[in-house]
Amino acid sequence: MTSERPYYQPVGNEERVFKAAYAQQLPVLLKGPTGCGKTRFVEAMAHDLGRPLITVACHDDLTTADLVGRYLLRGGDTEWVDGPLTRAVRTGAICYLDEVVEARQDTTVVLHPLADHRRELPIERLGETLTAAPGFCLVVSYNPGYQSVLKDLKDSTRQRMVGIEFDYPSEEVEIGIVTAESGTSRQVAADLVRFAQAIRRLDVPGIREVSSTRVLIAAARLTEAGLPLPEAAQAAIVAPLTDDRAVGARLAELLALYLPD
Amino acid sequence: MTSERPYYQPVGNEERVFKAAYAQQLPVLLKGPTGCGKTRFVEAMAHDLGRPLITVACHDDLTTADLVGRYLLRGGDTEWVDGPLTRAVRTGAICYLDEVVEARQDTTVVLHPLADHRRELPIERLGETLTAAPGFCLVVSYNPGYQSVLKDLKDSTRQRMVGIEFDYPSEEVEIGIVTAESGTSRQVAADLVRFAQAIRRLDVPGIREVSSTRVLIAAARLTEAGLPLPEAAQAAIVAPLTDDRAVGARLAELLALYLPD
Amino acid sequence: MTSERPYYQPVGNEERVFKAAYAQQLPVLLKGPTGCGKTRFVEAMAHDLGRPLITVACHDDLTTADLVGRYLLRGGDTEWVDGPLTRAVRTGAICYLDEVVEARQDTTVVLHPLADHRRELPIERLGETLTAAPGFCLVVSYNPGYQSVLKDLKDSTRQRMVGIEFDYPSEEVEIGIVTAESGTSRQVAADLVRFAQAIRRLDVPGIREVSSTRVLIAAARLTEAGLPLPEAAQAAIVAPLTDDRAVGARLAELLALYLPD
Amino acid sequence: MTSERPYYQPVGNEERVFKAAYAQQLPVLLKGPTGCGKTRFVEAMAHDLGRPLITVACHDDLTTADLVGRYLLRGGDTEWVDGPLTRAVRTGAICYLDEVVEARQDTTVVLHPLADHRRELPIERLGETLTAAPGFCLVVSYNPGYQSVLKDLKDSTRQRMVGIEFDYPSEEVEIGIVTAESGTSRQVAADLVRFAQAIRRLDVPGIREVSSTRVLIAAARLTEAGLPLPEAAQAAIVAPLTDDRAVGARLAELLALYLPD
Amino acid sequence: MTSERPYYQPVGNEERVFKAAYAQQLPVLLKGPTGCGKTRFVEAMAHDLGRPLITVACHDDLTTADLVGRYLLRGGDTEWVDGPLTRAVRTGAICYLDEVVEARQDTTVVLHPLADHRRELPIERLGETLTAAPGFCLVVSYNPGYQSVLKDLKDSTRQRMVGIEFDYPSEEVEIGIVTAESGTSRQVAADLVRFAQAIRRLDVPGIREVSSTRVLIAAARLTEAGLPLPEAAQAAIVAPLTDDRAVGARLAELLALYLPD
Amino acid sequence: MTSERPYYQPVGNEERVFKAAYAQQLPVLLKGPTGCGKTRFVEAMAHDLGRPLITVACHDDLTTADLVGRYLLRGGDTEWVDGPLTRAVRTGAICYLDEVVEARQDTTVVLHPLADHRRELPIERLGETLTAAPGFCLVVSYNPGYQSVLKDLKDSTRQRMVGIEFDYPSEEVEIGIVTAESGTSRQVAADLVRFAQAIRRLDVPGIREVSSTRVLIAAARLTEAGLPLPEAAQAAIVAPLTDDRAVGARLAELLALYLPD
Repeated sequence: MTSERPYYQPVGNEERVFKAAYAQQLPVLLKGPTGCGKTRFVEAMAHDLGRPLITVACHDDLTTADLVGRYLLRGGDTEWVDGPLTRAVRTGAICYLDEVVEARQDTTVVLHPLADHRRELPIERLGETLTAAPGFCLVVSYNPGYQSVLKDLKDSTRQRMVGIEFDYPSEEVEIGIVTAESGTSRQVAADLVRFAQAIRRLDVPGIREVSSTRVLIAAARLTEAGLPLPEAAQAAIVAPLTDDRAVGARLAELLALYLPD
Repeated sequence: MTSERPYYQPVGNEERVFKAAYAQQLPVLLKGPTGCGKTRFVEAMAHDLGRPLITVACHDDLTTADLVGRYLLRGGDTEWVDGPLTRAVRTGAICYLDEVVEARQDTTVVLHPLADHRRELPIERLGETLTAAPGFCLVVSYNPGYQSVLKDLKDSTRQRMVGIEFDYPSEEVEIGIVTAESGTSRQVAADLVRFAQAIRRLDVPGIREVSSTRVLIAAARLTEAGLPLPEAAQAAIVAPLTDDRAVGARLAELLALYLPD
Repeated sequence: MTSERPYYQPVGNEERVFKAAYAQQLPVLLKGPTGCGKTRFVEAMAHDLGRPLITVACHDDLTTADLVGRYLLRGGDTEWVDGPLTRAVRTGAICYLDEVVEARQDTTVVLHPLADHRRELPIERLGETLTAAPGFCLVVSYNPGYQSVLKDLKDSTRQRMVGIEFDYPSEEVEIGIVTAESGTSRQVAADLVRFAQAIRRLDVPGIREVSSTRVLIAAARLTEAGLPLPEAAQAAIVAPLTDDRAVGARLAELLALYLPD
Repeated sequence: MTSERPYYQPVGNEERVFKAAYAQQLPVLLKGPTGCGKTRFVEAMAHDLGRPLITVACHDDLTTADLVGRYLLRGGDTEWVDGPLTRAVRTGAICYLDEVVEARQDTTVVLHPLADHRRELPIERLGETLTAAPGFCLVVSYNPGYQSVLKDLKDSTRQRMVGIEFDYPSEEVEIGIVTAESGTSRQVAADLVRFAQAIRRLDVPGIREVSSTRVLIAAARLTEAGLPLPEAAQAAIVAPLTDDRAVGARLAELLALYLPD
Repeated sequence: MTSERPYYQPVGNEERVFKAAYAQQLPVLLKGPTGCGKTRFVEAMAHDLGRPLITVACHDDLTTADLVGRYLLRGGDTEWVDGPLTRAVRTGAICYLDEVVEARQDTTVVLHPLADHRRELPIERLGETLTAAPGFCLVVSYNPGYQSVLKDLKDSTRQRMVGIEFDYPSEEVEIGIVTAESGTSRQVAADLVRFAQAIRRLDVPGIREVSSTRVLIAAARLTEAGLPLPEAAQAAIVAPLTDDRAVGARLAELLALYLPD
Repeated sequence: MTSERPYYQPVGNEERVFKAAYAQQLPVLLKGPTGCGKTRFVEAMAHDLGRPLITVACHDDLTTADLVGRYLLRGGDTEWVDGPLTRAVRTGAICYLDEVVEARQDTTVVLHPLADHRRELPIERLGETLTAAPGFCLVVSYNPGYQSVLKDLKDSTRQRMVGIEFDYPSEEVEIGIVTAESGTSRQVAADLVRFAQAIRRLDVPGIREVSSTRVLIAAARLTEAGLPLPEAAQAAIVAPLTDDRAVGARLAELLALYLPD
């Protein structure tokens, strides 16, 4: 638990919904594009509610055992070691599963008894069922833009959760965030935000994702390290966005227009 | 075994069929959409019949060993540890395999000798065959809406079981359930049920599942935590239902119509 | 080996063929739909021939080691434990591999030297080759209706075996079986058999399998537990048969016609 | 090594080619349909050449370690145990890999240095390379009818071997084999061979393989156990051949024609 | 850390961008074709910044444990051994993941908390979260020409990084590099560079990649070992480039034109 | 290291290129069809250069650990055992990876730091990086005719190597090889070579590979063991070449024409 509140700027009713869900012991589902501040939001909520935060970055090979725990061999004996979910359940922490659709389905199914009225975690390998400590709260996030037939959250999982949708902040809010996070001037932040908005308005194939607030902060920080603004924007905003040469050329034109040398 | 009967409101002959199957030592197959109360129903039946309940949430990686048991290394020696199915067989419990079609086929095939006149569980790794204790009853559930060519219950499994079909409760029953489970007023419950019925009547692609009683209870609970009703319904009912923007817009119109600010 | 002959009603020359194959030490292949009595038949043959019966339910993850045996760690040492096939080979039992096409091909190939003139089981991990005890007999079964390009018995396996084909019994025989197995009246049994025959005559897509004798017995037993006949037939016969709504409606009409309230 | 020569009736120059390849230390590739006597042929050659025979039935899960050997845990220590190929290499035995195309490609590639001028078996896990004892001879077999894009012998493997092609024996030879192997009369054997020839002349889809000499012997043996000839032919020849109803009907007509009651 | 600066010739602003990113503790993404000097560049940067360099060549089977660490059995006890990423995090080294798109997604997802404001490496199996030492810098590279739907870097990974794009150097720079690295004469280096440029201008299917500076250096070194220039160019430049006969012929013509005997 | 030079007949500049690459410490890539003498060539080079030769036959299941080494359990402790590549790196041997495209990509990627200016082998599991001893030389081979989208050598691997292309030898050279290797007469050798050339000129689908020098030597050796020339050519040349009946008939005609009884 951090002693200072992490910087988080609300953009809608997300704090109110989160706190109501927490009060009712309902799990929360965060939906939104990459880099829009979901991780920071959960850090701020954990701080406000005075609960420890345990974060798990989900991926294809995350097994139930990685979440729940496993036996390890110690001194010729097997010894049980709790996984992060089990630690959260025992200590009443907020457990945040980032990009949960990346996880294998067994990982999401193991959440079901925790996510409904039971609030229980059956640990088959211990032959034991834990009841979650009062402060425990399950939070999962995913990016709907990545959804596919293969990687999707099952309805039986979704319908156990309260959903909060995130989007890019308004211009004013975003300029404030970039300034606060990078230490750059308001002018540079505003130039970067307008360049990002131009990219977000683009409708070209070859860009699946657009520039997030995070990359604007990175560009601003590169200028703080002495890089000229166009070079910083090229490196932090344009280069990571695409490998397509045609799209790259289009972005270079926009760059020259919005952030001339 | 809980000392108080879990809240369960019957909607048809499901209690009568379950108890007849139990009396005849026949396994039971529960079919129905997510959130319609299958888990609660099994909890209530276990209470009425005075049997312990062992629940297993099935998934892609659930192996036969997870159900039946395995050898663990303890003090340099391997020691057998029963799985949940074996514990149920030995102690005469009700064993509930939730979302059984998610399990690998070896998991379902291992149920065959338990599910017919033999009522036996062969444990190959012990070289032993257990006969189920008298009170043992196998219950499996699945959601027919999820069926696919890849994930289906084999006929040789289905034909060993007595089937019970679940559907959404009638308006009156559902209002009663929402009120009882959330502590909200009858008026709020009725408004939520009518909004859910409107969604259930929708015929749009992009929604595979419709709003269950469970999400209505969640919305009602959010209002109990102080959230305005439209925000609560948006978070608990609309947001988890779809990622499709067009469908989301349609649902927002319905929300404004049924639950105006 | 059971002391009383299991109830089995012959429907053709299946007992004669089985006993001739046994006398000539030839393996046997049972073909037929689910629930037509293959398991009971093998139990009756084992009883008549005075041999113990070892049954293995085959599935996708059944490995050769599961059949033949494996080393287990005991007291810091590895100790060999025979699998069910090896136990049958050593003791001269009948080894019944149920739904053999579900097994991986290595499982069926390991049967080859056992299934021809050699009657040998090479156990590579022991560096040993067992010769089958005289009474040993290999019996496998499968359901030809499930055959697919992916799951099929290799010709080199099939041509090592004597085949016996099973089908549904005649009306008279089936009424006798239902009565004997459920304790119901002849009238109820006859009504159920005629309802099943109507279903078997149906030619609708969406039903891959039709009602077996097993489900008729289950329905009869539910009536013995006090359920009205139409409810019993709905639960035991109709509900397990299909998830298709149109097919379900068609079956409900048939049910109302053959088993009116 | 058996003390009596196994019954084998040559049908061409196969014995001459095998013995020339053996004299020149060249590996041998046997090609032919199932049940045509490849296994018996290798048994006879091993007997004639006075070499022990080690047979391995290949399958999808046969690993290099299964052939070459592995470390096993014994008394807390790992101990190397030779696999069947290594035993054959050390002792100068004939090593027969039956249905070699079923094996994984690593299994066949490990044969390369053994199958060319090097006659060496590198055992990576021992850090050792064995030179084959003089009598060692590698023999592999497969059924060209099963070949597919996925399961094929690599040219670099094939071109290291001398090939021998097998086919069904002539009528006279086949009648002799059936009589000798089953103890039946010449008349019954001749009737069975003519029925088999009729099946082999059939050109219908749904039969991938035709009746081998092996199934004729099985039918003859069933008659020796007292089964009438048509029932024996149905069980041993027709039933294993197909699951297709139309093909089954066609075969039943042929059976009635060639082997009338 | 090498005591002498590795030979690296800058071609754009890549050194400036890298050092700004390093100063701001932002991770770096290097994009460019094979053999254009990415590895050398990272070696030079590590030297200039006075940080140790830990390189990991990524591949399909690289697991999170390979990067982060694992328990090994030592003297009957399990002992934790840090992986290369963990060593870099603890010691403040530059960690270079070469060809990162080859790695499995779990490998890239584990980088997320390291690659944003958190700079943390959660080690689930230790139940511990490391904060990166100040000098730690994550660098990944990939070749955009190899991108495919299956192998691509997720946007949520890319948008955490500052991108630097590499391309072939100018003629003058490349001649300098070939001379310096091979010890050949300026004339031979110039002939080789012009031959490579002709290949790079070719627009034929069958060549996915063109000749890199690396292969020119190899050709020059073969001439230093006494091979005639055309033979050296054939062996080091043409032969590795294609297996297509038509393309090979086209390259042979070019070779005869640019590097006549 | 053999004391006598293995028989190898050069067909082009392959010895000169190999020795130049060796002198410059550049790895070598041998391309050519099966049976054209690549293995012999490497044996001869190892002899000429006075280096030990370590050969690894690559396959689908060859892991990095198989090449580099692994921990084995010895006396309750894990002990590191070098793999063949590590042994070659430490002792300065020639390491020959035969049919390298068969290996998994992790196997080829692990070669990268060994194959460029670094000449290093990082052993992650030891936390150690070896520098190759001076005499170390990496040689890989593959058959371009087998290339496919799935199995191909990555450009980043290829461009680290000097390529040598092999083809069938000229008639005179091939007759000399067959005579020398089999002990047959020049006349028989010449007849076999001409038959092989006729096959190599064939342009029929169903033959992916044509007859190599190796199969001519095998045929000649079978005649030395007393088999008539046409039977020997049928067994050693025709039978391994195809399973296609039409192609087999075409080859039989050629055989009758070139090698009449």
